Amino acid sequence: MKYVWIEAPGIVGRFVPAGQAALPVADRGFTYGDGLFETMRVGGGVPLFLSRHLGRLAEGLRQIGFPPVPWDEAALRERCLRTTRENGIGEGVLRLTVTRGSGPRGFDPPEAAEPRLIIALTPRPPFAKGERETGGGVAAILAPWRVDPASPLCSVKHLSALDKVLARRLAREAGAGEALFQNLEGCLTEGAANNLFLVMGGQIVTPALRCGLLPGIARGLLLEAGEALPWPVIEAELPVASLARANEAFLTNAVSGPRPLVAVEGQPIGDGRPGKVTEAVEAWWERVCEEEIGNWRLGISG
Amino acid sequence: MKYVWIEAPGIVGRFVPAGQAALPVADRGFTYGDGLFETMRVGGGVPLFLSRHLGRLAEGLRQIGFPPVPWDEAALRERCLRTTRENGIGEGVLRLTVTRGSGPRGFDPPEAAEPRLIIALTPRPPFAKGERETGGGVAAILAPWRVDPASPLCSVKHLSALDKVLARRLAREAGAGEALFQNLEGCLTEGAANNLFLVMGGQIVTPALRCGLLPGIARGLLLEAGEALPWPVIEAELPVASLARANEAFLTNAVSGPRPLVAVEGQPIGDGRPGKVTEAVEAWWERVCEEEIGNWRLGISG
Repeated sequence: MKYVWIEAPGIVGRFVPAGQAALPVADRGFTYGDGLFETMRVGGGVPLFLSRHLGRLAEGLRQIGFPPVPWDEAALRERCLRTTRENGIGEGVLRLTVTRGSGPRGFDPPEAAEPRLIIALTPRPPFAKGERETGGGVAAILAPWRVDPASPLCSVKHLSALDKVLARRLAREAGAGEALFQNLEGCLTEGAANNLFLVMGGQIVTPALRCGLLPGIARGLLLEAGEALPWPVIEAELPVASLARANEAFLTNAVSGPRPLVAVEGQPIGDGRPGKVTEAVEAWWERVCEEEIGNWRLGISG
Repeated sequence: MKYVWIEAPGIVGRFVPAGQAALPVADRGFTYGDGLFETMRVGGGVPLFLSRHLGRLAEGLRQIGFPPVPWDEAALRERCLRTTRENGIGEGVLRLTVTRGSGPRGFDPPEAAEPRLIIALTPRPPFAKGERETGGGVAAILAPWRVDPASPLCSVKHLSALDKVLARRLAREAGAGEALFQNLEGCLTEGAANNLFLVMGGQIVTPALRCGLLPGIARGLLLEAGEALPWPVIEAELPVASLARANEAFLTNAVSGPRPLVAVEGQPIGDGRPGKVTEAVEAWWERVCEEEIGNWRLGISG
């Protein structure tokens, strides 16, 4: 990372050398986790699925009642592309953060908030199929607390992520790589940084949004895959006990793509090894990303 | 606010003019709400109940498995007092924040984290008894989502506070000043920035810690008040329906002290006006704070 884009109303947007990029201690993104972000895979020098990420961000800002931000989708798009180019990084992760901006003390969101925009790019080697955390697949724990689908935080990608940090810490302590959450009804929702898919009964099943989870970008693409995959991808309520009935499972996010989930709480999923369906989904993802990069080159996508 | 104290391992602590006080965009306090804070009332030029605040902070850092911070209680104490003096503010709010420090992308807490310390002081006029938000008392709503007492976030004062921000927004939209939370069992826990007390059956009753709430500093002092109050103060599980049976209710935090809670979701508590017990608790609080300021002057407290 060489340069970070920082912009706030009244402050002309500019690139700041990464080592000097800072935000005021009165920014509510820092004081109260009051903001949203997106993390995008950069491949072939372009931010993949940029329109989808910016669409989710706009919807999230609307959902949590943010004041109107002074950047429309075209403006954010332009800044993301400039940040990617300015850093000269072909493969990496682009993080775009919008905070409510500086504000007085107290939880009450100030009416006169002026949002702040921060865009940073972290290099990362190209994602290789089969790049897996532990001998062929990810193991997960179940986080020991439940989420309420009625919380407005479930469906937005927000800065108040300490619960995810602590869930990941528990996972690492247990020798696992992810923590899965469940809702008040005992239905699976998602991982700290991944959506969840179970392969069962000839279908690929993912928790429905009403269960309380982030509408992931890779998740959305999978649900729209249709004929591109030989199995239907559907949404459903998945009680925790579904894990014992799954033949395979996998996790997805827009940065890492699909990865096999082979065990939860020490119990293997299926035969405890990456399965054929997951392998096919990984290959499909590679194609989708290559197509996206190709479309960018043709100037017809993003 | 004139000066903010900023310190991180490898960076000599220093006062920075408030307008220039900033933290790196890679700080996890910003990227993931990964840190804790305390807000203290400054009165008579001293931070009140400083030892209690620092004790809660240390316990909170332990609870969420923070790496050891390089500042022991004496060091934090000294920095809080210096910040108060340096700013020359007699009445205000001192906020001390500890973040996990800068770290790489991803929720996993990095092993080599180096925490960052930020101490800022905001002026505020002296707190007057009877300083009330809406005609004699605070009205509250019930937040429309529930908290799980098993979450490690319930009992620590953390930066991931967007749920509190959004609850307060709903409260303000409803013309109220606070939002009360309930847990999975439908028992009251606390307000976004306040502990809750109900006066009923000749007792002052507050939700027990096991219900899932922050052990507030004013709450702790009330539970220890003993003979200083003519009513016993006890902890219990309080179903939401308890509100209808309360004669009075009040909210507390260490900055604002006790304030009458006169209505919840449009339903009056008791006769909908500040009650005698609450008034006595307000007077008790004034005495406790004056005594604390006096003890500071004698060099025997804090």
